[in-house]
Amino acid sequence: MKKIIKNRNEQRDAAKKFIKKILGVYFPNSKRIYLKGSTEDIKVPMREIQLSQTLVNKNKKKLRFEDNEPIFVYDTSGAYGDGNLEINICDGLKKIRLKWINDREDTVSFKNLISNFNEKYFFDDCSKSLNNSVYKQILKAKNNKCVTQIHYARKGIITPEMEFVAIRENMGRDRIRNKNLLKQHIGKSFNSSIPENITPEFVREEIASGRAIMPSNINHPESEPMIIGCNFLVKVNANIGNSSITSSVEEEVEKLIWSIHWGADTVMDLSTGRYINETRELILRNSPVPVGTVPIYQAIEKVNGIPEKLTWKIFRDVLLEQAEQGVDYFTIHAGVLFRFIQMTSKRLTGIVSRGGSIMAKWCLYNKKENFLYQHFVEICEICAAYDVSLSLGDGLRPGSVYDANDEAQFSELKILGELTKIAWKYDIQVMIEGPGHVPMHMIRRNIDEELKYCYNAPFYTLGPVITDISPGYDHFSSGIGAAMIGWFGCSMLCYVTPKEHLGLPNKDDVKQGLIAYKIAAHAADLAKGHPGAQIRDNAISKARFEFRWEDQFNLAIDPETAKKYHDETLPQQSKKNANFCSMCGPKFCSMKISKDIRNSIDIQKTDQSDVKN
Amino acid sequence: MKKIIKNRNEQRDAAKKFIKKILGVYFPNSKRIYLKGSTEDIKVPMREIQLSQTLVNKNKKKLRFEDNEPIFVYDTSGAYGDGNLEINICDGLKKIRLKWINDREDTVSFKNLISNFNEKYFFDDCSKSLNNSVYKQILKAKNNKCVTQIHYARKGIITPEMEFVAIRENMGRDRIRNKNLLKQHIGKSFNSSIPENITPEFVREEIASGRAIMPSNINHPESEPMIIGCNFLVKVNANIGNSSITSSVEEEVEKLIWSIHWGADTVMDLSTGRYINETRELILRNSPVPVGTVPIYQAIEKVNGIPEKLTWKIFRDVLLEQAEQGVDYFTIHAGVLFRFIQMTSKRLTGIVSRGGSIMAKWCLYNKKENFLYQHFVEICEICAAYDVSLSLGDGLRPGSVYDANDEAQFSELKILGELTKIAWKYDIQVMIEGPGHVPMHMIRRNIDEELKYCYNAPFYTLGPVITDISPGYDHFSSGIGAAMIGWFGCSMLCYVTPKEHLGLPNKDDVKQGLIAYKIAAHAADLAKGHPGAQIRDNAISKARFEFRWEDQFNLAIDPETAKKYHDETLPQQSKKNANFCSMCGPKFCSMKISKDIRNSIDIQKTDQSDVKN
Repeated sequence: MKKIIKNRNEQRDAAKKFIKKILGVYFPNSKRIYLKGSTEDIKVPMREIQLSQTLVNKNKKKLRFEDNEPIFVYDTSGAYGDGNLEINICDGLKKIRLKWINDREDTVSFKNLISNFNEKYFFDDCSKSLNNSVYKQILKAKNNKCVTQIHYARKGIITPEMEFVAIRENMGRDRIRNKNLLKQHIGKSFNSSIPENITPEFVREEIASGRAIMPSNINHPESEPMIIGCNFLVKVNANIGNSSITSSVEEEVEKLIWSIHWGADTVMDLSTGRYINETRELILRNSPVPVGTVPIYQAIEKVNGIPEKLTWKIFRDVLLEQAEQGVDYFTIHAGVLFRFIQMTSKRLTGIVSRGGSIMAKWCLYNKKENFLYQHFVEICEICAAYDVSLSLGDGLRPGSVYDANDEAQFSELKILGELTKIAWKYDIQVMIEGPGHVPMHMIRRNIDEELKYCYNAPFYTLGPVITDISPGYDHFSSGIGAAMIGWFGCSMLCYVTPKEHLGLPNKDDVKQGLIAYKIAAHAADLAKGHPGAQIRDNAISKARFEFRWEDQFNLAIDPETAKKYHDETLPQQSKKNANFCSMCGPKFCSMKISKDIRNSIDIQKTDQSDVKN
Repeated sequence: MKKIIKNRNEQRDAAKKFIKKILGVYFPNSKRIYLKGSTEDIKVPMREIQLSQTLVNKNKKKLRFEDNEPIFVYDTSGAYGDGNLEINICDGLKKIRLKWINDREDTVSFKNLISNFNEKYFFDDCSKSLNNSVYKQILKAKNNKCVTQIHYARKGIITPEMEFVAIRENMGRDRIRNKNLLKQHIGKSFNSSIPENITPEFVREEIASGRAIMPSNINHPESEPMIIGCNFLVKVNANIGNSSITSSVEEEVEKLIWSIHWGADTVMDLSTGRYINETRELILRNSPVPVGTVPIYQAIEKVNGIPEKLTWKIFRDVLLEQAEQGVDYFTIHAGVLFRFIQMTSKRLTGIVSRGGSIMAKWCLYNKKENFLYQHFVEICEICAAYDVSLSLGDGLRPGSVYDANDEAQFSELKILGELTKIAWKYDIQVMIEGPGHVPMHMIRRNIDEELKYCYNAPFYTLGPVITDISPGYDHFSSGIGAAMIGWFGCSMLCYVTPKEHLGLPNKDDVKQGLIAYKIAAHAADLAKGHPGAQIRDNAISKARFEFRWEDQFNLAIDPETAKKYHDETLPQQSKKNANFCSMCGPKFCSMKISKDIRNSIDIQKTDQSDVKN
């Protein structure tokens, strides 16, 4: 087995270098701040972007400047975004939620694993080298206790996690003094009603109703609470993980840190290679965002890749193992029922979900109903003991525009709705996965049916890709679908990279996918009227009109690229204050002329009677 | 003055090399075909993508193959896309429309210019070197004749141009034999009703009603007829042209050829530098697509960049000059009325249209109403004599999400509607320009108001950009808005490149902008149910399911990039037939498993009674 950790000191040094490489470089004029909650240990991270002054030059004799106040940005980068913290990936991150979990006194801790597989594949190699491996103290609910956030919410308990996300969702907008920046077009989302001020009680209600979830495995106390629901900011997931023929463990950890730097709200570790546990352990211990998995990928490794040989017992052990390790949500393809398989035979692209195709093959070979459906209650019981959220997989999602919105797809969706009801009975947090490939005019029906059949459980979609002809640009063509469905009420968007349909994404693909999806999510927030979503737009527009170039770059979603593009044609530092760019040159800059016009309106106090026709 | 043409032979060689560099390389397995019309000279270009066979391996003893018929793609690349033609940019393209124009016997030809400025700035330097310079024979309507396509359409005449576009819009779909490829989801566009078979008569009706235009200056007989209207394929415009501080004439011609290679349906030459005429002449003589301009950019060069000094006389001469040269459509900012200027004073970003800001400044300084509005009838008279279409500019479009859909914007739009009526009275083809920066939930109102106030004249929008925070990625964030508004009934999308707001686009930016917008336009065609739009999607999906990798690349919007991304992880030629890619590896490929499932359904003829629970 490949070892990733040879020498502790060597590794510490490498880790430090690696973190440094990512930190601080890309977000100039930004600093990490923390918004405090009701107790000392509720510290909500934000990125504060500091801006330069505006030259207010009305009286030409004397230059006058006005301050531009800093802007706060929702920050998913965890400790990596805090220049003051030392990080070593073999120590893992601080377990910020551990006290909150322990304070609830509903868990017990073990030193030995319940699941069978960890030790064989992993224990010796990896956990010894990790100071903070979860295997030193595994938490589980006490007998007859449920430790899920929805359980607390339904009992009327506001957890510290709920307070954390309330502060986080408000994005510090009560601190903004410039009322003009706060002005925004109130959107009309099809399903959301977001309050002006998000309170911990509102968060509790949303979780209790099932409209929102907060993936938070008690064995992943490193994660910073975040919420997924249509009345909150639209979230973005980044898929990482190796496949059997490419990528290494180190690369995947690098992709994690890279992903959260670019704003991933959760990551899914979709590894299918040999080093599944090792990869996942390093990811979990170093991830400030919830981590999701598709457990069938690991289960099938254990039967040498032969779907027919899967058993509930093997699958169950995988669930236990991953729950103990700290996985925050599981994708479970329990809706791929035997009778639906035939419905895919007229499709152009059959079954395109890996999990879905595995389960379909299993059903056909064994002539039995999907064992995930049969054992769904047991799955819920495992989830209840660790607070693993369920992401009900759409194993029959369409893989082409041709197959969109067909019988197989919606038949499965209705089953996912049934399963949602069952999960809620067991106080399990649930979200529903969605397509796939859908042309624009058919997107709306997807969210409508999901909300109807799945009782407003959060929708979590992959794209949808709106045309099939764009391999190499599917981050873009799916980003269009993602922006639209986010506006319509989809809660989380699973990113798609430029490599979709072609190969495993590398680091730059991860960045391109995330930027496309952060734009889509933000556009959806604007359209559904999330309070304060427009502050950053207004700030960058003000900077643009005032030719504060550096501020424009710093407020951009990717400052480095914005600056680089600008500098390609006007690299001189002096041009950073120039009243034009190379697009139009100095004489043709509409912004410049427009400012002259504004001054001239002010001076002339022109009225219509002045017009000579 | 900089000369671009020093030595004829040298230049011919350079031009040939340059054309070779662009041709043939990027569209593998494609060949140019021509669909014939009712006469020999109506030859509509299409790109035929040839596909490999499908292995139908049911009987394992003997391999059986099935043909996959070729797919036809709308082709804007003109002679550059025909490997059999020799091209030299100083000869210009073949004047394919000249016979049609002459046959109508409603024009006279001149050897001298009517306009004053050409000779001074241009005649000596450039036209001598161009074999086919327009200045050797300028056409103009005979006295009291109107030579516009709308004029003919209203008289019930079906021109060869109309027949050409009817064939073009049908995209050869009557040749497709595989009925499965023809299957498509019929979209519901908000404003379109596209017939199954587009006839020349339908084209005539659409033009006569003003719902569609066909920009086709009689002095640009090199252009291949194309149509812009909500009941036709959504079109894309690429802006090219230098600014005073960057880019050269040669680069702009290169951008033209590059643009049409990537699918630009029209180009706008927005040059603002010294070599405006020279650039435009080379572009027009070598452009198979209509060319639009914003004449005010040239007019202001003639008054040394000082808006206040503009006069109607100077502007009129520019119009004449450009009409004589062959410009197919003019953007005219005649809706920026004096009384609207004050409405922009509360905006965050004032006036962001260059033309709009110039006219506003002119009005304020001179205390007069916009001279373009005052002289609009004279503008129409010029257009009628050459068939220049009018693109009524939105000088007051919003430059930020904050300013979207405001009073200034919609006040101007209503004036554009009034002007549309006037233009139609003079048998001028008209389209209406639209925003700009608009969040998603406010896009719909833009097209609704446009159709209402401008009587269904084609809408031609810049984006809209749906958030302001994405400099460096505005091709993407505006592409989202473009796809949506295209679906809602917008007829042409003006591309935005990654350099928008930052600098002048280079060649690669032009490609990125075009690909984003071709995806948006195609997605809109799918959503509005353009018959046959889905053929290419279906073909690529079939190739994907059958692991015909090369066919997937060749059917993609950018084959080179798709192949490159695939080969990054699986470069071996043998993997081009592999039943997997690096994303999932061989064991986890859902498509592969799905095929096994399909075979197993066929063999087992499974029914539900087989299920053992």
